[in-house]
Amino acid sequence: MSKRNLYLQTVPVEEAVEKYSAELAKVLRADTETKAAGDCLGQVTAAAVFARCCSPLFNDAAMDGIAVRAADTRTASEQEPLLLTEGKDYIEIDTGDPIRLPYDAVIMAEDVLVEDESHVRITGAAPAWQHVRPIGEDIIEGEMLIPSGHLLRPVDIAAAIAGGNAELEVFRRPRVAIIPTGDEIVSGLDGKEGAAASGSIIDSNSYMFSGMVSEAGGLAQIYAPVEDDYEKLKTAVLAAAEESDVVIVNAGSSAGREDYTVHVLREIGRVIVHGVAIKPGKPVILAIAGGKPVIGLPGYPVSAYIDFENFVLPVLNMLTGRQGTNRKTVKAVLSKRLVSSLKHREYVRVRVGKVKDRFVASPLARGAGAAMSLVKADGFCVIPQNSEGFEAGEEVEIELYKSPQELGHTLVSIGSHDLILDVIADKISLSSSHVGSMGGLLALQRGETTIAPTHLLNMETGEYNVSYIRELFPGRKMALIKGVTRIQGIMVKKGNPLGIKGVADLTRCRYVNRQKGAGTRVLLDYKLAQLGIDPAAIDGYDKEATTHMAVAALVAREDIDAGMGIESAARAMGLDFIEVGPEEYDFALAQESLALPEVQDFIAVLKSEDFHRRLAKMGGYGWERSGEIVIID
Amino acid sequence: MSKRNLYLQTVPVEEAVEKYSAELAKVLRADTETKAAGDCLGQVTAAAVFARCCSPLFNDAAMDGIAVRAADTRTASEQEPLLLTEGKDYIEIDTGDPIRLPYDAVIMAEDVLVEDESHVRITGAAPAWQHVRPIGEDIIEGEMLIPSGHLLRPVDIAAAIAGGNAELEVFRRPRVAIIPTGDEIVSGLDGKEGAAASGSIIDSNSYMFSGMVSEAGGLAQIYAPVEDDYEKLKTAVLAAAEESDVVIVNAGSSAGREDYTVHVLREIGRVIVHGVAIKPGKPVILAIAGGKPVIGLPGYPVSAYIDFENFVLPVLNMLTGRQGTNRKTVKAVLSKRLVSSLKHREYVRVRVGKVKDRFVASPLARGAGAAMSLVKADGFCVIPQNSEGFEAGEEVEIELYKSPQELGHTLVSIGSHDLILDVIADKISLSSSHVGSMGGLLALQRGETTIAPTHLLNMETGEYNVSYIRELFPGRKMALIKGVTRIQGIMVKKGNPLGIKGVADLTRCRYVNRQKGAGTRVLLDYKLAQLGIDPAAIDGYDKEATTHMAVAALVAREDIDAGMGIESAARAMGLDFIEVGPEEYDFALAQESLALPEVQDFIAVLKSEDFHRRLAKMGGYGWERSGEIVIID
Repeated sequence: MSKRNLYLQTVPVEEAVEKYSAELAKVLRADTETKAAGDCLGQVTAAAVFARCCSPLFNDAAMDGIAVRAADTRTASEQEPLLLTEGKDYIEIDTGDPIRLPYDAVIMAEDVLVEDESHVRITGAAPAWQHVRPIGEDIIEGEMLIPSGHLLRPVDIAAAIAGGNAELEVFRRPRVAIIPTGDEIVSGLDGKEGAAASGSIIDSNSYMFSGMVSEAGGLAQIYAPVEDDYEKLKTAVLAAAEESDVVIVNAGSSAGREDYTVHVLREIGRVIVHGVAIKPGKPVILAIAGGKPVIGLPGYPVSAYIDFENFVLPVLNMLTGRQGTNRKTVKAVLSKRLVSSLKHREYVRVRVGKVKDRFVASPLARGAGAAMSLVKADGFCVIPQNSEGFEAGEEVEIELYKSPQELGHTLVSIGSHDLILDVIADKISLSSSHVGSMGGLLALQRGETTIAPTHLLNMETGEYNVSYIRELFPGRKMALIKGVTRIQGIMVKKGNPLGIKGVADLTRCRYVNRQKGAGTRVLLDYKLAQLGIDPAAIDGYDKEATTHMAVAALVAREDIDAGMGIESAARAMGLDFIEVGPEEYDFALAQESLALPEVQDFIAVLKSEDFHRRLAKMGGYGWERSGEIVIID
Repeated sequence: MSKRNLYLQTVPVEEAVEKYSAELAKVLRADTETKAAGDCLGQVTAAAVFARCCSPLFNDAAMDGIAVRAADTRTASEQEPLLLTEGKDYIEIDTGDPIRLPYDAVIMAEDVLVEDESHVRITGAAPAWQHVRPIGEDIIEGEMLIPSGHLLRPVDIAAAIAGGNAELEVFRRPRVAIIPTGDEIVSGLDGKEGAAASGSIIDSNSYMFSGMVSEAGGLAQIYAPVEDDYEKLKTAVLAAAEESDVVIVNAGSSAGREDYTVHVLREIGRVIVHGVAIKPGKPVILAIAGGKPVIGLPGYPVSAYIDFENFVLPVLNMLTGRQGTNRKTVKAVLSKRLVSSLKHREYVRVRVGKVKDRFVASPLARGAGAAMSLVKADGFCVIPQNSEGFEAGEEVEIELYKSPQELGHTLVSIGSHDLILDVIADKISLSSSHVGSMGGLLALQRGETTIAPTHLLNMETGEYNVSYIRELFPGRKMALIKGVTRIQGIMVKKGNPLGIKGVADLTRCRYVNRQKGAGTRVLLDYKLAQLGIDPAAIDGYDKEATTHMAVAALVAREDIDAGMGIESAARAMGLDFIEVGPEEYDFALAQESLALPEVQDFIAVLKSEDFHRRLAKMGGYGWERSGEIVIID
């Protein structure tokens, strides 16, 4: 077996940032440039901007009307209007026109009686400087308009220009080179087809970095992927350091066999930090090569994102002159326990929604590979390095992406998963966590969700959902919003090669189950009990997936033969489907929640024709009672 | 006299927006485009994005190590390590490498004993699927990744690409034509020199609009200025409507003599609204011409800004698919009375700072021409159309540009003006309002400011500031931070054409005074009293300017001969200066405020060498005691 960098040393996050910043401060200089003021939006002033002229440039008219000599108008009155002659006693002016001596006052057009083309009468005296906007009223020559270190907004640029500054001195946008590495990488621009052709990993990280660089005020350039080859990587990094201000190498930052990055950087420069006590994101490399910051980011998208925010952004801010921005925070109740290690600071993505008068944070998938957890997240819960985590129900601080107002409009749903939740989330703002039917009802009990999607069969009566709610919420006024009926069945590979006809045949295949508490699993157990089959007889009964689509995806591949789920999931993955029976997928909630606007919007979607058309297209659904309300007292 | 559109009808803001939106809805369609996903940052999805493939695309290794067949490892133990042969029993893999059958488990490199290049020993059994990241763990083929109508962030783009989407369907960025009009307009790109050459108005609005269009997700194009000519304007608007999605005409929206815009738009299209009950911003024109929205914005920068936000942004949002964003708001105490008319909704710019534990909002200049009020503003106080305004001390809601955290770090200063405040504001975040020395001390009394710059002479003792503070704050523990000594004097035109030698000569010139309560005015009154001169003998004693620079700017022009102020202001404007005497410009505050970090930073700036260098360059200052603390019990 080949050599590896098995034992990464890790340093605390702050220490890593400080150590790297201190080293960079010795070699990095923020370049400035002088350019047309109109092109400086989002850049930071490198010097204070002073007014080179006054604005207005001269005394000017604050009203439309006529300019007069105040002293000449003293005798005018309602009784004896004064006749004035154009060119001699007055000139016509519009707002903004210069008022020059001998004229020193303006009479509004509304107060002038027009005699003929070149004569008017006025009915009152005009005090000196009436309706005259004095020179420099807005901007005085020599005054400071914008301090240095200021992020330029449209109004700043306009004021600088109004003060006679055609050009501004700003910090130059840093050029950031992004080098994707790895034999297995194909460009994200090739899409599914490119990846399918080579059986490789689609490079999506580079595009995330590129967007983050743009948002931070830099100019990103994505380089062609470099294969796992020491010399080629070295050449690429040296070239990028020559052409750019910052270099990002992705991935190749961990301790794997082919992770040459750290060795290359040690040869051509200095590695300041390799390994930080952060999760996800531990194997980051902070180095200096060719006099430029070179940062090795891990390949997992969430690790890459968190390391970019913690280690690349501060470097970009040194160059752009921007201030680091503090995220908005909000206090929220954790919907489930979060255990973490004392070894690192952990960033857990959460969805946040308002349930009654408090915010509830539901942790999303914690894996470093869970890119969708970044898309779905409303914010981060940060577990400090010296903490073992937080208990369910504990109030924690959430670093938000969104404003608290936006969160207030999100409908929180915790419970069973169905594809229709995606369809609904395309219409309204929905925070949906998938913990199975029973998990959802328990969250509803704890006040952590507004609605709980559920499909739980009463094995004695054959009725769905109602008896469970009655039992779990004694004495509380509850309701059920009817969702859809759907066909549950067994998904098998196209053509059904093992000839599976029903639940009894599951004992002779490789199966994948749903997690405990999931309605689909309850249905399987019910059917197995009816048939007198021991669950242990099924190979894979203990192998769990948490959604219908996850089961379908597994069945579509070589190593799994069957799984239970809904017809739409089987269809979506091109699988065959053996019907087991229909079931009712509904939404439990407190009666008082029915009045909430987000719940009303939700019901409206369930009843809409567009929704029913989508269901018809997906297949396997009935919508006769969708949106109907069942009161459970 | 010529014809004017004297009487604009005005409609309430909401009614104007609704009327215009309803008409636009009939003709406007938001175009979509399909383009490389990596180029879609900041655009909005026109359709939901679904995963075209799973991510990961196959079962892959979650750890660096070796892939094995789980069934083969059952006998391995610490006591009897199992020997495995490469290629036959295992293959080496790195994180992310595919795991294909027959291999179905991964053993971490750390848990493997290396025997030689092609043999290892393992000391424990590997359960099936150990350290294997299953296909589709992150993204399942067919699932919805991003809903329609979603503003694309870097993480969204990365997830779409990881799901096999090389391209996305998004709303096209609208092209916005900006047409500056007016004989007097010169391009902002020509700067002070261009304006000075033609004695004209610098076009700064176009650059503000351009920046606002960019921030709203559109593509702005600034057209060459069009002179005041009916046919030329008509040609320009028709061409712009042909080439663009939205046209902005600036200015020419009011009722002035040369304001052709509304007539042109009536001829070539339909004017939906002309005149809205909004201040500033009343004369806005909302029209449709050539099938495109054409909006006439007023020339005053603040009017233009407020009308853009209220009337142009909603149109851009219709085309970009973006949601209007609600501004953050904060409750703040008004530092002075705001009177407004029932006739319109008024937007008053305010600075906001934290004084003790509450936010204080200080209204800035209310004029429509006060572009700097937009630069200095932390937010808006909106006075509804049906309100006569708010009282001083009343709690009002402020629509913020900044986050409340940022406001917390701003040092609030209300009082006398000096150019050194600009120098200090270049170093720390300073909210500085200029109401004269006495006005500042009264604001300090009311708890509306943290520091109050003051230069008030005790006419009996000749001492500055201390006696005033003692008198105004009986029984309170106060302090004075020593600022600078500065020379007060008379500013006159270069060469002193009237031969002014001192205060006695002010009776024979056109003078401009400072506002009541200003230290400079107190000094003048003191000197006049000493000389036995009646203030009424001075032409312009009642003409007030509120800063030294404003006085200097007025003296530099033709119609004013003299004003009192500080030497640095005279120098900045190239004026001659006749010394009257030195004075002490200090900062009053409560003793307890001395401990605040923003006050500590302020004192550090006063004591810094860099600050003293700047003073030396400006001239007329002494800094022997700068930053010294005087306790006043």
